[in-house]
Amino acid sequence: MPELRKDPITGRWVIISTERRKRPNAFRPDSAVLVEDAVCPFCEGNEEYTPREVLSYRRNGGVPNGPGWDVRVVPNKFPALQVEGDLDRQGEGLFDKMNGIGAHEVIIESPDHTQSLATLPVASVERVLWAYRERVLDLKQDKRFRYILIFKNHGAAAGASLEHPHSQLIALPIIPRNVRDEISGARQHHQQKERCVYCDIVRQELDQQTRVIAENADFVAVSPYAPRFPFEMWILPKRHGAHYEEAPRHEYEALARVLKETLQRMNRALETPPFNLIVHSAPFTEVSGEFYHWHVEIIPKLTKVAGFEWGSGFYINPTAPEEAAEVLRAVTI
Amino acid sequence: MPELRKDPITGRWVIISTERRKRPNAFRPDSAVLVEDAVCPFCEGNEEYTPREVLSYRRNGGVPNGPGWDVRVVPNKFPALQVEGDLDRQGEGLFDKMNGIGAHEVIIESPDHTQSLATLPVASVERVLWAYRERVLDLKQDKRFRYILIFKNHGAAAGASLEHPHSQLIALPIIPRNVRDEISGARQHHQQKERCVYCDIVRQELDQQTRVIAENADFVAVSPYAPRFPFEMWILPKRHGAHYEEAPRHEYEALARVLKETLQRMNRALETPPFNLIVHSAPFTEVSGEFYHWHVEIIPKLTKVAGFEWGSGFYINPTAPEEAAEVLRAVTI
Repeated sequence: MPELRKDPITGRWVIISTERRKRPNAFRPDSAVLVEDAVCPFCEGNEEYTPREVLSYRRNGGVPNGPGWDVRVVPNKFPALQVEGDLDRQGEGLFDKMNGIGAHEVIIESPDHTQSLATLPVASVERVLWAYRERVLDLKQDKRFRYILIFKNHGAAAGASLEHPHSQLIALPIIPRNVRDEISGARQHHQQKERCVYCDIVRQELDQQTRVIAENADFVAVSPYAPRFPFEMWILPKRHGAHYEEAPRHEYEALARVLKETLQRMNRALETPPFNLIVHSAPFTEVSGEFYHWHVEIIPKLTKVAGFEWGSGFYINPTAPEEAAEVLRAVTI
Repeated sequence: MPELRKDPITGRWVIISTERRKRPNAFRPDSAVLVEDAVCPFCEGNEEYTPREVLSYRRNGGVPNGPGWDVRVVPNKFPALQVEGDLDRQGEGLFDKMNGIGAHEVIIESPDHTQSLATLPVASVERVLWAYRERVLDLKQDKRFRYILIFKNHGAAAGASLEHPHSQLIALPIIPRNVRDEISGARQHHQQKERCVYCDIVRQELDQQTRVIAENADFVAVSPYAPRFPFEMWILPKRHGAHYEEAPRHEYEALARVLKETLQRMNRALETPPFNLIVHSAPFTEVSGEFYHWHVEIIPKLTKVAGFEWGSGFYINPTAPEEAAEVLRAVTI
């Protein structure tokens, strides 16, 4: 059983993952190459190599766990958290722990091994976004969970272990600290100004235009004002809303368009870099609807995080966001 | 001039570094190999390739900026922050910024290119620790600075750009958020229990022994209870003290011994991995002497930080600290 442990100083939780347990000689420091098995478990026709699916979209028919799907969601074969059991909170002297209860799923974005969110048709990207929504709405009903994090690791340097295009979600029994930090900052701004800080950012970015990368009627993609990483990108809905899964129907299509364009621009400007994508959405159990504003963050993996960053939580970024946005706007896609 | 910018939501500061400015084609995603110049600027005899030294220890005599030194401290040739100027705090609509004022220095740990803190004699390691102390005591007098972070990147995967053994320090005009988090957690514990949380940890670890890696009269090296990373290690002084630079004389010798041993054990168990080392010490300007407790954190770079971690601030660790400590204790050094 994986274990959740809390640092007694900072309150930071970590997952001690028994399913992913490694002996010292199993670590290959900085091996950046994806080891592909002879058989890709995510390719169409290889459905038997994954746990049984929890969702699939099948325009071409076919039965569950067989071919014919466009998007397929399965439990992670090596989950960081375990779905069955109770939290069983315990102390250990000074320390706090609980069982590592949660859901860990894989969203297989396409039956085609060679595609990506930048190359798939907009309609296919939109289906992936609908699959995110549908899984969140389902998992939200489990009262043990307080937060669901949707994310994507693309490329070995960004932490991916398989090449086939896929995203992941992890449902957690606690609200992670980065989300808490965003909520507490957004709450503070709202208390002072009675406005959403993200709505204020959207207004200022659209007004200044210097950090805008792409835009449509419903979304704007920007290089944020204080980015941790070179070419970090945020995609923000123009309409205020706290929960990704509660967006109106047409926004998923609009997000698919701006997301595809943003990734195409990134690939063109930076030679198809490894990247992480994270959906930031409000927790289920807290009332944050007035001041939290869901959005997507994309981090190309271009630099290494070093001692200074680990020690301080303070980032050195060699590229001003105005310069990054200019480069990303200028490329031809 | 580098710029310090603040994220309006989380309050996180970043350095937009103009000295280290990179165009998109200058990023080599995940190149893990150190590019060595023909001439190493940190080797004895090559003193002309660095800025002029601010400190050197010379048992073998010699004049400043010439050979004969054991430890040498120079300003960083490509500083993240600039030492001359005023902070000049400004707004930009919703956003806050100030000039990137600070000091960025390099502590060259040995004249010998092939050594490391694990292979140098204890007396040489101790000299490095004294150099840290002396530079902090000097830079503390500059009233623009609120914090000094001492850190070390060893190996390309850990962010080092030169192979020659060296540490760095950055003096900052703000207190970094990770330090704030530690202070606020330690303050809370002290308010509730009138005890230092780190002293409590030292007591429990010495009592349980399951996470102890090495120990001497003044220090204990442990795998912390809730480590973010596999084989993360903390070295804690047994005696309470908030400031690294105010430790009693004999503690630097004792720290040199336990630090060397800990790194030797790490190198033996993990095949000399890349790693980051960070000295955690109290800020100058805040009264935290009763509840903060300086210490050293060492993070071997064995895994990649991926989307889940960036999105949540929550870490998945595949190795339980009890198992890591057992492996580190068991190796022969």
